[in-house]
Amino acid sequence: LTLRSSSPIRVRYAETDQMGVAYHGGYFAWFEVGRTDLLRERGVTYRELEQRDVRLPVIETGARFLRPVLYDDLIEVRTRVAAVSGARLSFEYEIHRDGTDGPLATAFTAHAAVNGQGRPRRLPVDVLSLLS
Amino acid sequence: LTLRSSSPIRVRYAETDQMGVAYHGGYFAWFEVGRTDLLRERGVTYRELEQRDVRLPVIETGARFLRPVLYDDLIEVRTRVAAVSGARLSFEYEIHRDGTDGPLATAFTAHAAVNGQGRPRRLPVDVLSLLS
Amino acid sequence: LTLRSSSPIRVRYAETDQMGVAYHGGYFAWFEVGRTDLLRERGVTYRELEQRDVRLPVIETGARFLRPVLYDDLIEVRTRVAAVSGARLSFEYEIHRDGTDGPLATAFTAHAAVNGQGRPRRLPVDVLSLLS
Amino acid sequence: LTLRSSSPIRVRYAETDQMGVAYHGGYFAWFEVGRTDLLRERGVTYRELEQRDVRLPVIETGARFLRPVLYDDLIEVRTRVAAVSGARLSFEYEIHRDGTDGPLATAFTAHAAVNGQGRPRRLPVDVLSLLS
Repeated sequence: LTLRSSSPIRVRYAETDQMGVAYHGGYFAWFEVGRTDLLRERGVTYRELEQRDVRLPVIETGARFLRPVLYDDLIEVRTRVAAVSGARLSFEYEIHRDGTDGPLATAFTAHAAVNGQGRPRRLPVDVLSLLS
Repeated sequence: LTLRSSSPIRVRYAETDQMGVAYHGGYFAWFEVGRTDLLRERGVTYRELEQRDVRLPVIETGARFLRPVLYDDLIEVRTRVAAVSGARLSFEYEIHRDGTDGPLATAFTAHAAVNGQGRPRRLPVDVLSLLS
Repeated sequence: LTLRSSSPIRVRYAETDQMGVAYHGGYFAWFEVGRTDLLRERGVTYRELEQRDVRLPVIETGARFLRPVLYDDLIEVRTRVAAVSGARLSFEYEIHRDGTDGPLATAFTAHAAVNGQGRPRRLPVDVLSLLS
Repeated sequence: LTLRSSSPIRVRYAETDQMGVAYHGGYFAWFEVGRTDLLRERGVTYRELEQRDVRLPVIETGARFLRPVLYDDLIEVRTRVAAVSGARLSFEYEIHRDGTDGPLATAFTAHAAVNGQGRPRRLPVDVLSLLS
């Protein structure tokens, strides 16, 4: 039982820029797909979390873009839970592509748990236990 | 007194694709800037409309992409109110660039007035009169 | 043998706006996924077309947004070739979601075949035959 | 003479998400506006750099999202050159909004100078001197 997941993503033309590679700002939507899939595989969806008055805004991120990601590439976003506590949660990501050694990019996102009014709150106990 | 406005927009690298031009899907954010500016110039902001429980989702659009729009171009979005009725509103757009004859693109968007629950509602009377 | 394809897409949080639905401008990336999948299923990828000096910029589009598309929805983009000629190509799209009757959105895109310098050119004969 | 610039940006509806705030992934396009404006004010445009066979892909970034940025906010991106060497360049950013104390977000981007084929190259001497 691991706190990891793998998300296949096909790179869209909309995600490229005129350098002929995927624009760096678009990677963050892929990381979002990664953590969404991880949560779903653990048994909770982010949609449900919102219905339970939990929001997980990104409060910090960092990313290294090591090798270009190209249009139509079928990439794999590997996601893992890096840390979880009462009101904080963080994920780490690697982007891989078959046939290329090592990650194309690495990143993390840190999230605060807040309610619908944006005030800090604790993660529900069942969510904490699913992610620990 | 006209129901027209003009919005200058500098094309971002993020908005280009690997064809070396602005991606067509990104134009719709520019049209949004156009109608937002028009409303603001008429004396009402879309932010205020939302606070008054009015939403104006796009229900239909059409666009012609006549000449490429390039990175770093300083384009002008010309917007005008095309039609307004109790619960409907539509805008027409042209994108121009100094030194190029004729529009680079033309488009329209049609909007329904709905409330925060997505149910049809009438436009406030003062808004109707500002746009008529 | 049909000129239709079906593309499953999970709606990303990045694609929503503060109305709580998917932003209309983001649908065009989904339509792009639809026609890309259709081409791939017919035996040609758009990536290959570019390597053969063929670009297919969108020259016109139209879309009707009939029902809201929501975050985390698993939608289906149904794509079909609407028309194909020497230097033109057009596609029609419908967005569906299990459990909802009728399409959530309908659209078309019209494309011109151009070369890497943006000049009109004919579609390669094998591509024409794959799409006819 | 400073290596700083200030870019006003109006937040677009397209840039919000259903949390009712600007999506974190969209900030990177604003940072791009910031460094583009800084370069332009120093006397060189990124468009010209590309014509001189210089590309500046982002190889690393980090960002802290301290306070929400809202739809229609008129934000200010403050950009400064953090470091410049033969083939590397980095920028730091702060996002501010009138009436709010302290930055809404802080970030950096690090860039490698590469040529059109993606191979490392030195920054042109005049560019180095403009940024030093």
